[in-house]
Amino acid sequence: MKRKVMVLTGGGDCPGLNAVIRAIVKRASQEDNWEVLGCIDSFNGVLKTPLELVTLDLNSVSGILVKGGTILGTTNKGGPFHYPIKNSDGSWSSIDRSEEMIKTIKDLGIEAVINIGGDGSQRISKALYDRGLNIIGVPKTIDNDLSATDFTFGFQTAVQTVTEDIDKLVTTASSHNRVFIMEVMGRDAGWIALHSAIAGGADVCIIPEMPYNIEKIKDKIEKRYINGRGFCIIVVAEGAYSQSKGKIYQESKEIGYYNEKLGGIGNILMNELIDAGVKHDIRLTVLGHVQRGGTPIAYDRILASEFGVKAFEMVLEKKFGQMVVYRHPEINSVSFDKAIKEPHLVEANSRLVKTAMGLGIEFGN
Amino acid sequence: MKRKVMVLTGGGDCPGLNAVIRAIVKRASQEDNWEVLGCIDSFNGVLKTPLELVTLDLNSVSGILVKGGTILGTTNKGGPFHYPIKNSDGSWSSIDRSEEMIKTIKDLGIEAVINIGGDGSQRISKALYDRGLNIIGVPKTIDNDLSATDFTFGFQTAVQTVTEDIDKLVTTASSHNRVFIMEVMGRDAGWIALHSAIAGGADVCIIPEMPYNIEKIKDKIEKRYINGRGFCIIVVAEGAYSQSKGKIYQESKEIGYYNEKLGGIGNILMNELIDAGVKHDIRLTVLGHVQRGGTPIAYDRILASEFGVKAFEMVLEKKFGQMVVYRHPEINSVSFDKAIKEPHLVEANSRLVKTAMGLGIEFGN
Amino acid sequence: MKRKVMVLTGGGDCPGLNAVIRAIVKRASQEDNWEVLGCIDSFNGVLKTPLELVTLDLNSVSGILVKGGTILGTTNKGGPFHYPIKNSDGSWSSIDRSEEMIKTIKDLGIEAVINIGGDGSQRISKALYDRGLNIIGVPKTIDNDLSATDFTFGFQTAVQTVTEDIDKLVTTASSHNRVFIMEVMGRDAGWIALHSAIAGGADVCIIPEMPYNIEKIKDKIEKRYINGRGFCIIVVAEGAYSQSKGKIYQESKEIGYYNEKLGGIGNILMNELIDAGVKHDIRLTVLGHVQRGGTPIAYDRILASEFGVKAFEMVLEKKFGQMVVYRHPEINSVSFDKAIKEPHLVEANSRLVKTAMGLGIEFGN
Amino acid sequence: MKRKVMVLTGGGDCPGLNAVIRAIVKRASQEDNWEVLGCIDSFNGVLKTPLELVTLDLNSVSGILVKGGTILGTTNKGGPFHYPIKNSDGSWSSIDRSEEMIKTIKDLGIEAVINIGGDGSQRISKALYDRGLNIIGVPKTIDNDLSATDFTFGFQTAVQTVTEDIDKLVTTASSHNRVFIMEVMGRDAGWIALHSAIAGGADVCIIPEMPYNIEKIKDKIEKRYINGRGFCIIVVAEGAYSQSKGKIYQESKEIGYYNEKLGGIGNILMNELIDAGVKHDIRLTVLGHVQRGGTPIAYDRILASEFGVKAFEMVLEKKFGQMVVYRHPEINSVSFDKAIKEPHLVEANSRLVKTAMGLGIEFGN
Repeated sequence: MKRKVMVLTGGGDCPGLNAVIRAIVKRASQEDNWEVLGCIDSFNGVLKTPLELVTLDLNSVSGILVKGGTILGTTNKGGPFHYPIKNSDGSWSSIDRSEEMIKTIKDLGIEAVINIGGDGSQRISKALYDRGLNIIGVPKTIDNDLSATDFTFGFQTAVQTVTEDIDKLVTTASSHNRVFIMEVMGRDAGWIALHSAIAGGADVCIIPEMPYNIEKIKDKIEKRYINGRGFCIIVVAEGAYSQSKGKIYQESKEIGYYNEKLGGIGNILMNELIDAGVKHDIRLTVLGHVQRGGTPIAYDRILASEFGVKAFEMVLEKKFGQMVVYRHPEINSVSFDKAIKEPHLVEANSRLVKTAMGLGIEFGN
Repeated sequence: MKRKVMVLTGGGDCPGLNAVIRAIVKRASQEDNWEVLGCIDSFNGVLKTPLELVTLDLNSVSGILVKGGTILGTTNKGGPFHYPIKNSDGSWSSIDRSEEMIKTIKDLGIEAVINIGGDGSQRISKALYDRGLNIIGVPKTIDNDLSATDFTFGFQTAVQTVTEDIDKLVTTASSHNRVFIMEVMGRDAGWIALHSAIAGGADVCIIPEMPYNIEKIKDKIEKRYINGRGFCIIVVAEGAYSQSKGKIYQESKEIGYYNEKLGGIGNILMNELIDAGVKHDIRLTVLGHVQRGGTPIAYDRILASEFGVKAFEMVLEKKFGQMVVYRHPEINSVSFDKAIKEPHLVEANSRLVKTAMGLGIEFGN
Repeated sequence: MKRKVMVLTGGGDCPGLNAVIRAIVKRASQEDNWEVLGCIDSFNGVLKTPLELVTLDLNSVSGILVKGGTILGTTNKGGPFHYPIKNSDGSWSSIDRSEEMIKTIKDLGIEAVINIGGDGSQRISKALYDRGLNIIGVPKTIDNDLSATDFTFGFQTAVQTVTEDIDKLVTTASSHNRVFIMEVMGRDAGWIALHSAIAGGADVCIIPEMPYNIEKIKDKIEKRYINGRGFCIIVVAEGAYSQSKGKIYQESKEIGYYNEKLGGIGNILMNELIDAGVKHDIRLTVLGHVQRGGTPIAYDRILASEFGVKAFEMVLEKKFGQMVVYRHPEINSVSFDKAIKEPHLVEANSRLVKTAMGLGIEFGN
Repeated sequence: MKRKVMVLTGGGDCPGLNAVIRAIVKRASQEDNWEVLGCIDSFNGVLKTPLELVTLDLNSVSGILVKGGTILGTTNKGGPFHYPIKNSDGSWSSIDRSEEMIKTIKDLGIEAVINIGGDGSQRISKALYDRGLNIIGVPKTIDNDLSATDFTFGFQTAVQTVTEDIDKLVTTASSHNRVFIMEVMGRDAGWIALHSAIAGGADVCIIPEMPYNIEKIKDKIEKRYINGRGFCIIVVAEGAYSQSKGKIYQESKEIGYYNEKLGGIGNILMNELIDAGVKHDIRLTVLGHVQRGGTPIAYDRILASEFGVKAFEMVLEKKFGQMVVYRHPEINSVSFDKAIKEPHLVEANSRLVKTAMGLGIEFGN
């Protein structure tokens, strides 16, 4: 019988997930007698009846390197510790099925689990490891906000997508003397906004870590116009908020991603600028999940491939309870405790913010 | 002294404007003794004091083929027939400065004017031609809604931009079992939505010409899911509206492009779907002016170059009062009367709509 | 039992083949009781034992719209009229298996065949139709050289690929004052070269239809330099040749695509320019099959989808012995006789060549 | 009078040069009383009569962030230490004009020079610094082969360009069961080949640091085919060579980039594979300078901007005789001595080579 490793992907997707899966399978195929199983929709594949598990061989991963998304599916709902059950009165509650799930995995003869996921997923990894599961983590966050790793795959692709769209706005902005607001991802961390503002040559960058003063943004806009001619590109992270109003971002399952009444920070900011007296035409772009999709750029494919190869080698070395990390110039690993500590946020006095300021970018704070 | 032709761009910009300008200059440079003048910000360049005119030689147009926007600037404000003036009480009114402007142009020794612009711009062209100006039109509309020409430059670039972003949404939609709404340009004509829905493999296409019934869209969404798995891509033109509510699109100069309270058709549709009982996650992308920007694709560069060469040759032939058109397989011209007649809208029984239906795309009407 | 239609792809591939297949399957799924079978590697799938046929349902075509290549495979070797057999002495000859193949297809209960392929494939279609097979053609040629249809899918994608790479060359060419030669596809027809030369703003365009005089090209290069500064972009189709030397293109199965000793027209041209005394740095790019690959652009996806929907509707109408064509603004069909007549070549006095000359492009003839 | 800093770009260009220039100008504009001068064509601008110097203000650098190439021009010819002079007999020799040039620069009141260039350029920087010029270096190499800095701008863009073209080859390769050879840049260092082989999912990667054995490559190709079906993507760096034949790369000014008789490593390899008995179709792509061109990807724009800001800040700090480097996570500087030591080559037992092997990539050595 073959030795078995199970792979799954959890949380919001980002470009490069398939490249990790492919690398695990490619590397495993070089060892005698190993079989890779894919668990569908995060851990739900081993919580459902019948089980949803697929065998992943070289054929299964052919052609997936270039594909966004994840061939294994993913979900934010359910999971071993809070599995939803319907009560007799029709209401819902959740139960802890972790012990049962660990038993299922062991009964299947699975020696190790590789969990590719973000902060939330790795907290689950840690809890399962503490209960005796042989588990290894691979970090995944489009926001690049994990302090344990220098970079995560998918982030550079998102930045590239935003940058290309800023490039498109610049040409039309300058022809029409307009102000453009580009709302990008980033609820808590402004990394996508910061990187794409520098790369796109934006004039204003607004991030959650540096609450804004609308007057300062207005002033910057006015400085960009001479005799009525000029334009201004503003990049704003979805989780940004003004100093006066405080944090307004909220996600409601019922109404979708954006706050119904406020219409997202892009809309809010546009209206605040109009109220503050900005007379130039203002137009809004909300990229949304376009940032999470598409084929990963080369940088992310390489990083994801390195993570995948490393993860399987950690299985061989029985290095459980650890998450793969990139600590330049090494691909290494850290314990789950270290993996899930404080998020990595933009600091106002950091190198990249100073570079941005050196380029004349206004943070509005 | 050199013979002079003046070129200007009017209305909203679209990829390929610079390619037209470049082609005019390149072609003019092959004739002895011609000089091309660029008028800044549509006709405003010859209405301002001092005049804003630039000489366009081969050097001026070097490298502009690949650039979006227009090196001459453009505006929707002012113009010869409704030039704004400030009254003594601070209020604004407008006056007709067309006669004065025509005189200025003739006094400058300009023999012909090439006006690159949309429907509104060509109405001005016609009125100026009727008043004695030697003027030639080049059509421009991102929406491809002119009935006099098979295609206009910029349209295919916009469709390509939307399609690439739908491609990105598809990968993430299928991983997460989500519904995605992609709001695209098109206030009256649904061509961008229709083309990009087919090219992107969307499931639903909602256009102004075919008002929607929310229940039909909901039904289509549900059909796309089996056992809770599935996804749905909806492309909606900004000017679309439901059969029950009627047309809601409005542009207000004060509040910017989107209706403040309603937040655009994308938001409206999302909320209607939630109200109608759709339980799947719905996410929204609003591309906005990204669709008008960027480098033109090859198709549009070629079409724009053909328009430019033709326009200058019409100057040589003194073929005034005409607009360049593409009537496959010829580049030809029509009188302004024909150029500005009824817009070209999507018809429910047209070939392309039938193709879309043959592919299973739901129009929701 | 279901009614059956068989689909296959033949000859060199080009972007959009999968979009045609998908459209056939999508459209067929709307009719009761139809099944689409895919024949692997052109007709070889019904010539081999065991047969290589796959059932194509909505699931099979999910996600293929964006994919280059063909999920059915293709080949230039074999085919029903010249199927290779190994003689007893080890040498190879070929036999006509067309009657047998037609019988196999009919025995399988297949009512109609859709053959997606180029000139050679449609000649086979015609011969099979003449022998009683219910067959319909869909045109495919990266070179756009069929006179029966205005455009074929894949062509615009190839032109876009070349144009984007010319854009990249222009920036480096101008920084270094270099001459760049870009060798593109086109053995007999120069359409890719002509379109991409206009779209990329090239200075010289060399095509098989207009044999070149090396001195004229040298003269054009020199005119592009002033005081040693300048650059020159030359696009040359692989089948081009000089007036003095005559046609040199040849494909040899043994040695691969390029002539071993001469190294391709790009190399030949470079050496001729050096021999003619051009002192500027000359660099060469040979894109090769990159032009045939990649995801189709929106234009080609739409055209391919229209072809696929139309082809299946012709099956329903029993319109056999015909090939789908695009005659703007209609998708129509013509008999195989008309489909395979004279190729559509660039004519020296055609509209597009005149446009190119109007832009200052030198053809060197 | 304003304080003056002079900027120049030397050697082969790569995407991001303009982003460095822009960052220097943007940062300088924040200091009172500084003027940035651009020296045209490397140092030649201050060696010619009249001088070729341009003032670079915010207007000069508007829009250049997205542009490949360098607005200042560059050259590999001439330079202060080997300036060409024509002898009375018509032959050429060269003289050392470094002292004179340093004097010219000082007489112009230029306080500091920023030299953006590769290994050769920084050797010149060091020699000029040793002779008393206040000079700062910014590293530039498309090959990423400087040991003093983790990454250089332009490299990731080149890798991305190659990877996108490999993606295109993969689709057509698999449809046709072909072998594709992709020849990429890298005379001494195989970094572009290694990165793009991993990112593109290539099967074989051949680099100068690991001379190849043709039989091993043939074996790998054969393993990729089962029953005649399969394909193989080979990435080869231009400076690669076989173990048996030794180094063959040579650049000859007279004949252009590729060796006339051998036709480049791509051609050589193709012929060796045919000679070795590979029967599958083999096709070749030679990207050439396409890899050096185009708009820089976001990653490179950010890195280049950081280098530019840092370089000007080093001018303020009078930190001369140093080159800017990126030592993750810092932007720092090292002395010219350290900057120009041993090149950074691929090592056979390095992390990335092991990752590549873990993915099944054959190096053929």
